[in-house]
Amino acid sequence: MSEIAEIAKRAKEASRTVGVLSTAVKDAALASMAEALEGNVEKILAANDRDMEAARAKDIGESLLDRLMLDEARIQAMAGAVREVISLPDPVGEVTSGQRLPNGLEVRQVRVPLGVIGVIYEARPNVTVDATALALKSGNAIILRGGSLALHSNLALSHIISDAAIEAGVPPHSIQAIETTDRASVNALMQLDQYVDLFVPRGGPDLIKAVVENATVPVLWAGAGNCHVYVHDDADFDMAEEIVINAKVQRPSVCNAAETLLVHRDVEQTLLPRLVSSLQAHGVTVVGDETVSRLSDVAPATEEDWYTEFLDLKIAVKVVDTLDEAITHINHYGTLHSEAIITNDYNSGRRFVNEVDSAAVYINASTRFTDGGELGLGAEVGISTQKLHARGPMGLRSLTSQKYIIQGSGQAR
Amino acid sequence: MSEIAEIAKRAKEASRTVGVLSTAVKDAALASMAEALEGNVEKILAANDRDMEAARAKDIGESLLDRLMLDEARIQAMAGAVREVISLPDPVGEVTSGQRLPNGLEVRQVRVPLGVIGVIYEARPNVTVDATALALKSGNAIILRGGSLALHSNLALSHIISDAAIEAGVPPHSIQAIETTDRASVNALMQLDQYVDLFVPRGGPDLIKAVVENATVPVLWAGAGNCHVYVHDDADFDMAEEIVINAKVQRPSVCNAAETLLVHRDVEQTLLPRLVSSLQAHGVTVVGDETVSRLSDVAPATEEDWYTEFLDLKIAVKVVDTLDEAITHINHYGTLHSEAIITNDYNSGRRFVNEVDSAAVYINASTRFTDGGELGLGAEVGISTQKLHARGPMGLRSLTSQKYIIQGSGQAR
Repeated sequence: MSEIAEIAKRAKEASRTVGVLSTAVKDAALASMAEALEGNVEKILAANDRDMEAARAKDIGESLLDRLMLDEARIQAMAGAVREVISLPDPVGEVTSGQRLPNGLEVRQVRVPLGVIGVIYEARPNVTVDATALALKSGNAIILRGGSLALHSNLALSHIISDAAIEAGVPPHSIQAIETTDRASVNALMQLDQYVDLFVPRGGPDLIKAVVENATVPVLWAGAGNCHVYVHDDADFDMAEEIVINAKVQRPSVCNAAETLLVHRDVEQTLLPRLVSSLQAHGVTVVGDETVSRLSDVAPATEEDWYTEFLDLKIAVKVVDTLDEAITHINHYGTLHSEAIITNDYNSGRRFVNEVDSAAVYINASTRFTDGGELGLGAEVGISTQKLHARGPMGLRSLTSQKYIIQGSGQAR
Repeated sequence: MSEIAEIAKRAKEASRTVGVLSTAVKDAALASMAEALEGNVEKILAANDRDMEAARAKDIGESLLDRLMLDEARIQAMAGAVREVISLPDPVGEVTSGQRLPNGLEVRQVRVPLGVIGVIYEARPNVTVDATALALKSGNAIILRGGSLALHSNLALSHIISDAAIEAGVPPHSIQAIETTDRASVNALMQLDQYVDLFVPRGGPDLIKAVVENATVPVLWAGAGNCHVYVHDDADFDMAEEIVINAKVQRPSVCNAAETLLVHRDVEQTLLPRLVSSLQAHGVTVVGDETVSRLSDVAPATEEDWYTEFLDLKIAVKVVDTLDEAITHINHYGTLHSEAIITNDYNSGRRFVNEVDSAAVYINASTRFTDGGELGLGAEVGISTQKLHARGPMGLRSLTSQKYIIQGSGQAR
């Protein structure tokens, strides 16, 4: 048996015990993990220094270095994130439906842990802690496989939180980090479907594509967000401007930021120039269709632009003749993440939310609210843009399955 | 674009309209489909005759011939199954959670169709009708790819129900059957993730394995049922016998029938011989561990036997020393389908249902109740032995996703 298979087998065995831990034990372990992070700041920073030094030598660019970098504040934030998970309700044991059948059988559907969760991620070491806290609270064992850049940071973090958890009563091997960062370890892990119940790739489209194509373990992924705001002909001008600016500008690097603005033809002369000027005044590069690119400083959009998640202060703007054209454009070019309509018309809003096929659809609000914290789910595993099992922000419940528990008094068919 | 891709693209386009059809239109279409089946008995039987003739020439065996064969009663039963789907509640539009956030945003999670469902199946032509009725009621377009043996029957059925649905207002291309039955068409379909939202393989372990290994489209499968009955030391003898016999004998060919019986060591001298004799009296071949095989007419069980879904009048019997040994055996050899404990001890029952990792766990009842109809879900897509999205009997809800609908009055972050 390969080393990765041994790790997965041990995780499966541990998962039997993790799955039946009481909420009190899990919460106490989470509290110990948070304390252990705060008590080992120097050790964590020393490990991170090794990663940072190696990364600087590789000339990987400032933004990646920033993702990799830990300091005392960031370690505090990790501990804080663990404590936030303590405050969330335990999803295990939640009864989601139940009835007594005519034959007297008492049937309940109950949330249970999935078992073993494998997480692959890239540069950010905080994922080690976030993912572990969510897995533990939902009663799962976790296998962590971080990127090579953050190897020493990830191993230091996982050992510290694993030791703290074990001391608090969590079985050994519930939290394991894979120490090899070659591609083979990922490929092995995603095909160990006899031991691993869920695979979560956290990373760019290439990672997700490789996992979807090769995994035999079921996968939950958080894909790209090519989000749209559509301004209908009767929109309130001030509201439209505020939402468009918020959706594009407030934090352009995140998946729920807007990437394309659609504006109805009837307000082409009035609202469109105002929205474009306002975006430009906020530092946004605007590209547009034939109509929009007649405005000053607007370059023509390429076909590729309509598909692109810019993750930057850039937006593609298109004029549409009808609500139908807007819906068709979104369903064609979008990534099923988050889309908003700005309108005062009852039927247009209703049709938009029913016919746009995305995880979150908005009337008169910014797409930026698609977030576990904002929607009251608490910490999230990611925002799912797939349709099976979990769609939109994935909270603790997305790390659970369900089981039928059926109690009888001798019933047979 | 390949022919299969064209079919999938047309299905995706049709799914936009199917997804927003009213329940009344869908139910009227289902009623027309049922009538069309009854009105075209001769046409269906003629097509089935061609399949039966070709199948007989291939010498495929009586049991497969029986699965393939249609007669007037079976066509009536298909129409009846369609009418049963009419009586089930429409899952689309169900609000599964909702709240008003402090910022005034009104948030709802609403069930929506998945979009396009691809179903692969083997000899039984009734799957063409059952799967289509469930897909339509849940607002999905469907692509059917049946086995080569049933090709003419499947095409006749799919054309008849598709024409009836279109006449009743369902958009064309909502119900399509693939007319080629080579392996390439299956492989192409399971990788068209840009058009197909869910893939359902209905067939043997080899088909499911091939799909799990090669599909990029998310998959829901109904796996094997290696179900266990565990008789604890304090079980009521009469109840134990009745449940064991029912679970094994009432319909041995189905996935929720028992395949292994575990009996506590303390009743080895008393209850065990009675259970084995009763099974044998019902025509069941008993194999067993060292203790059990000392009884008359019991052959020693092989290691393979503990893994086997016999689907026949055969059972493997083992004596265990403790509840823990029973739970460990089931979690090791089982297929996560259905398992029962017979006991009067509160804590043993509680531990069994919590620690056995199966879709359905029973106290003092037969495993045979794991069934959509028995559990009040109505018609089912199959019984899922995986943990993501749907576990246990998969009803109409398993063919839906969810969407966040968020209504505001200008909210921005």
